[in-house]
Amino acid sequence: METKLAILGFAGSLRVCSYNKPLLHTATDLLREDTTVEIFYLDGIPPFNRDLEMDMPATVKEFKSKIREADAILIATPEYSRSASGVIKNVIDFASRALGDNPFNDKPIAIMSAATGMFG
Amino acid sequence: METKLAILGFAGSLRVCSYNKPLLHTATDLLREDTTVEIFYLDGIPPFNRDLEMDMPATVKEFKSKIREADAILIATPEYSRSASGVIKNVIDFASRALGDNPFNDKPIAIMSAATGMFG
Repeated sequence: METKLAILGFAGSLRVCSYNKPLLHTATDLLREDTTVEIFYLDGIPPFNRDLEMDMPATVKEFKSKIREADAILIATPEYSRSASGVIKNVIDFASRALGDNPFNDKPIAIMSAATGMFG
Repeated sequence: METKLAILGFAGSLRVCSYNKPLLHTATDLLREDTTVEIFYLDGIPPFNRDLEMDMPATVKEFKSKIREADAILIATPEYSRSASGVIKNVIDFASRALGDNPFNDKPIAIMSAATGMFG
């Protein structure tokens, strides 16, 4: 049986009519046939609080588990204040904790943006 | 009557035993007598979602109003993944929206960190 490259995608915009969510879908359509893409929606992940490290919210546990299972990560994010959205920074902070339990370690990550502002 | 310089401070860590919250308090104690500092706690600010722009959550409205009233901003943030916390990035994204209603415009901002990690 052929082994497919498993990609996990997520978007740094939460709004319903996000441009970055369809960007992920479009990228998915263009991928080689020997890849699979799963898209994870970040809506349920709260602002990171280290007090939650020992008892991570279920959404964060699931997110970390999906990252761990994936061969590579694909991020689509809007550009706010000249960098990736706070939503993206927050979920990276959250998922990379606690110390020594960072599923992003040694994982290839690609980042892209459907930036629509004047300075994008 | 003397006019005092009004500073608004906030910390990029939400946990109870944050190092950056007392850092703000310590900085406050060291300030000149012709300044006042108000500390705003970011706990109630959700992940930014542009769908909320037209009807901002009450905490965000209050945060924006405090920024607008202040002469200067003082931020204390932990360092996560080699930069300011996602919590900080998120509240900056949120408060600086909607387009044309950014209270940070032309506001002096200082940022400091009680970074406790090996790479801080």
